[in-house]
Amino acid sequence: MRLGELLLGLVIVWLAAKLAGEAMERVGQTAVLGELLAGVIVGPAVLGLVRESEILQVLAEIGVIILLFEIGLESDLSELLRAGLQSTVVALGGIACPFALGYALAVFWGKPALVAVFIGATLTATSVGITARVLSDLGRLQDAAARVVLGAAILDDVLGLVILAVVTGLVQTGVFSLATVALILAKALVFLVLAVALGIRFAPTLLVWVGRMRARGSLIVYAVLFCVLLAALSERIGLAAIIGAFAAGLILARTEPRAHIEEQIKPVADLFVPVFFVTVGMKVDPAALNPFGEGALGFALALTAVAVLGKLAAGLGVYRRGVRRWPVGVGMIPRGEVGLIFAGVGLANRVIDQTLYAAVIIMVMASTFIVPPWLKALYRRP
Amino acid sequence: MRLGELLLGLVIVWLAAKLAGEAMERVGQTAVLGELLAGVIVGPAVLGLVRESEILQVLAEIGVIILLFEIGLESDLSELLRAGLQSTVVALGGIACPFALGYALAVFWGKPALVAVFIGATLTATSVGITARVLSDLGRLQDAAARVVLGAAILDDVLGLVILAVVTGLVQTGVFSLATVALILAKALVFLVLAVALGIRFAPTLLVWVGRMRARGSLIVYAVLFCVLLAALSERIGLAAIIGAFAAGLILARTEPRAHIEEQIKPVADLFVPVFFVTVGMKVDPAALNPFGEGALGFALALTAVAVLGKLAAGLGVYRRGVRRWPVGVGMIPRGEVGLIFAGVGLANRVIDQTLYAAVIIMVMASTFIVPPWLKALYRRP
Repeated sequence: MRLGELLLGLVIVWLAAKLAGEAMERVGQTAVLGELLAGVIVGPAVLGLVRESEILQVLAEIGVIILLFEIGLESDLSELLRAGLQSTVVALGGIACPFALGYALAVFWGKPALVAVFIGATLTATSVGITARVLSDLGRLQDAAARVVLGAAILDDVLGLVILAVVTGLVQTGVFSLATVALILAKALVFLVLAVALGIRFAPTLLVWVGRMRARGSLIVYAVLFCVLLAALSERIGLAAIIGAFAAGLILARTEPRAHIEEQIKPVADLFVPVFFVTVGMKVDPAALNPFGEGALGFALALTAVAVLGKLAAGLGVYRRGVRRWPVGVGMIPRGEVGLIFAGVGLANRVIDQTLYAAVIIMVMASTFIVPPWLKALYRRP
Repeated sequence: MRLGELLLGLVIVWLAAKLAGEAMERVGQTAVLGELLAGVIVGPAVLGLVRESEILQVLAEIGVIILLFEIGLESDLSELLRAGLQSTVVALGGIACPFALGYALAVFWGKPALVAVFIGATLTATSVGITARVLSDLGRLQDAAARVVLGAAILDDVLGLVILAVVTGLVQTGVFSLATVALILAKALVFLVLAVALGIRFAPTLLVWVGRMRARGSLIVYAVLFCVLLAALSERIGLAAIIGAFAAGLILARTEPRAHIEEQIKPVADLFVPVFFVTVGMKVDPAALNPFGEGALGFALALTAVAVLGKLAAGLGVYRRGVRRWPVGVGMIPRGEVGLIFAGVGLANRVIDQTLYAAVIIMVMASTFIVPPWLKALYRRP
């Protein structure tokens, strides 16, 4: 009956994710918020309909790998490289300010240095997916501020992944030394540069061969195979699997059949990505949210404030005429999936406890939640 | 490192499946044959690159569920119901003859009655997928014989699933009584009829709601959710999960967005179906194939002969003018996935041992292998 149990679990996960996601979209929010809430509701915290299992966790991991592959596919490496000084200034500001503020807050709250670094790092990554989705929903993707914020968000997403690798390494070795930072940063950069350089050199030739294959479904299988291979390699050398998946997406984004790959990966992502967000929601322990105990609420609110202020400060880095600062700052706020991945890594490695984990989740949810109405309001009265 | 190991395992499974599948297509065979051989090669039998794990098995199960869902989606229930006397006669002959011959062979070979029933049942199901694919490759889908053989093969596929349920039940209760047969047959029929009747009544309304959803990917997620729900229910009442998946496909085949569902399920099937066939191949123990020991080769050859003769005999059921008997008989021969599922059920329930399992695999592979060139030859000189 194991198979039947797993299948019923999947049915509940999908149904809750789609219903809650739809409800959130209807009230002008993003579907991902609904998927997180769905996880909280069907998980052990509230209804206890689905319990965590190794197999569900693996399906969730496949989901987040596919998600980062898809984000990579939708990113433009040239745009990333030519993003210009303006995007870079905003991106660096959007990393430095939240990190400094988050670190300071955690130290002020009496946390150890390693935890403070982790909290600071968790605040750095902007979620390209959520930002792009909101701007697209508002029909503002071609706006000058939108271009700056997208360029900066893409940079922040990549740097956030490098920071994730650095912090994951720190957490696993347990030592905070500049040599470790340099080593991991170098490893991450060498891996990414090498993978992308070799990939861009040889992927087109390989895809010509794949294009000649007669067997059904060759393109999608070889594309996902490439993604999973880079994910496995990046995990093997001590980086997160999603970094390899993102690199694979960046590489295939520059190949000729990119549009076909994107089209065919979409239903696969539709099925597996929500499993990831639901399992993230399932990890929330509502006991940690109790405002009357020594719970997370106070810290969670302070963390959220710092997360918002830090990215708004990055908007001050706008120096070009004709680019409005507020939409840039607000557009950088959503943390989304990378913030959640940070939280998961921290919890798995026992750097943060359930209370801090809940605080991070609240920060991610709040920062995602406030952006759509805020941006909408900003674009209503210029 | 568990995740990294699983990811590398998937890379090997996909790479072997696609390379071997491509090679088989190139020499005029079907890709599924290559995927089976790939499993034998990368599995413990030869190279030992990938070992069986619970997670790989679950991914394979998802693969076979998606496959039967897809076959259901491509089947036409009305065509099935109106298949006409001609297809029914051929279909029943194609079940009775192989069953009788297989049963007789097994008894003659000294097997117990339960095993003999299982062997007979294993020979009954024609694989619609392989037959349709071969006829389509030959450009003969509109041929009179092709229509008869397709109708009969679809019927045999459904009856094969019912027989699978009956035999699975027999194997699990261990008793061969007419009451058991009737109960399981009734259960299977009631489930299928009820699911299909209710599904056809309510699915269109539900899909209208799904069509109004704003969240991305609603159609594919709800379609797969429906498939997995029926699979879980059919497993819960003691039938095979694939029966529910097939019923879900049949139901959605009659709805308006069928083409969209088919298009979106395709890449998902491309990724997961080969995992199933590779893991099937991985289960073959080459020691059982040793022709010098008390191996399976003698029985395997006899079983293959009986499998071919039994379905050729069904071709004699053709009474309509203008329908050639040979293409009908030969078109019924491929056993494909349902035969493999029988073998898996038999092995899992210890009804058949490694030797018989290998014989069934050889029979399935041989019956699949000979059909493309044979049909090609038949259509070359009419």
